[in-house]
Amino acid sequence: MAVSKLKIGVLGSGSGSNMQSIVDAIAAKMLCAEVKLVLSDVQDAKILDRAKRHGIPCQWLDCAPFKTKLEGVAEERCIQLLRDYGCDTIVLAGFMRIVKQELLNAFPNRVLNIHPALLPSFKGIAAWKQALEYGVKWAGCTVHFVDAGTDSGPIIIQRPVPVLDDDTPETLHARIQVEEHKAFPEALRLLSEGRISFIGRRVYVK
Amino acid sequence: MAVSKLKIGVLGSGSGSNMQSIVDAIAAKMLCAEVKLVLSDVQDAKILDRAKRHGIPCQWLDCAPFKTKLEGVAEERCIQLLRDYGCDTIVLAGFMRIVKQELLNAFPNRVLNIHPALLPSFKGIAAWKQALEYGVKWAGCTVHFVDAGTDSGPIIIQRPVPVLDDDTPETLHARIQVEEHKAFPEALRLLSEGRISFIGRRVYVK
Repeated sequence: MAVSKLKIGVLGSGSGSNMQSIVDAIAAKMLCAEVKLVLSDVQDAKILDRAKRHGIPCQWLDCAPFKTKLEGVAEERCIQLLRDYGCDTIVLAGFMRIVKQELLNAFPNRVLNIHPALLPSFKGIAAWKQALEYGVKWAGCTVHFVDAGTDSGPIIIQRPVPVLDDDTPETLHARIQVEEHKAFPEALRLLSEGRISFIGRRVYVK
Repeated sequence: MAVSKLKIGVLGSGSGSNMQSIVDAIAAKMLCAEVKLVLSDVQDAKILDRAKRHGIPCQWLDCAPFKTKLEGVAEERCIQLLRDYGCDTIVLAGFMRIVKQELLNAFPNRVLNIHPALLPSFKGIAAWKQALEYGVKWAGCTVHFVDAGTDSGPIIIQRPVPVLDDDTPETLHARIQVEEHKAFPEALRLLSEGRISFIGRRVYVK
């Protein structure tokens, strides 16, 4: 099995706990990769503090004038930075913007996202809350390749999480995050080991 | 815990394997219930043969002129038959028609359906095939109360089923059915034990 070392660029907007799980998996030799760069669209996001603590290059990426997407000058700058730092795999780790075709074209089949639901259920914002309101008995998380849609790309890994009768949005979200922190490093490991192929929307693991 | 004996009316269109799982659970004393009547909209459906073998009253229910719903004269006749046989709980076991408000009004919060997907993903026909085509890693089944929508009512039980790389629609469907045959008797048991309540869409199990 030919393992290639992933050169990861992370885009995030929040605490960076998913980035942390990737950094931890690398440190534990569970994942052959290096996080080369962390970018955040939120100037004071904790993900930037975390990156600094681990000595990972990081920057605030000013995405104005857009509020919900990465486009235009910011997108160009993002792509340039990811290239400058030698990234070949882009990880959306709680990045609260839609990425557009330019970025996807720059890293074809190499942009991954994690979503806190068993897609295609509960796309979009606060999926765990949507799940509770709907009343499902199983929630979960999904790691998928990013395509031009929202939370719609080919699925690499899903991990189900039971919903409990006394769950609040907070408790359910916390249990989903535990599974996210397993799923994302695992999906990246499969990628680095060259074990992922796909036909149409269906992803196969060798 | 006050257990009440369910008087079940089954509506089905196919082989009746879900009805069989209910009959088996009753025979094994896992479920306090009696199947009082089986109705099928398909004249030569195997579910009618199965019912006969178990000595359960059964009838073909001519649903013409409608092809995809139970309405009008057939709906009235269905309700009358279910009442005549003393049914208090209606089980849709592979019934390939939309049931309408008259039936739901006649048995409020007492019409249950099983769907071969982790709803709200993959409503409608051949859900296991939709799941494979989408490329999810977890499929499953859902037992839910029936409401005026399609596969949209409050969820009682879900059981996840992993999708395998070499799954065909047939193999995945077969593995989902194994879980259906556990889920439906289990949901009915909760109902007979008076353990189900709900607030809005969210079903709670005591």
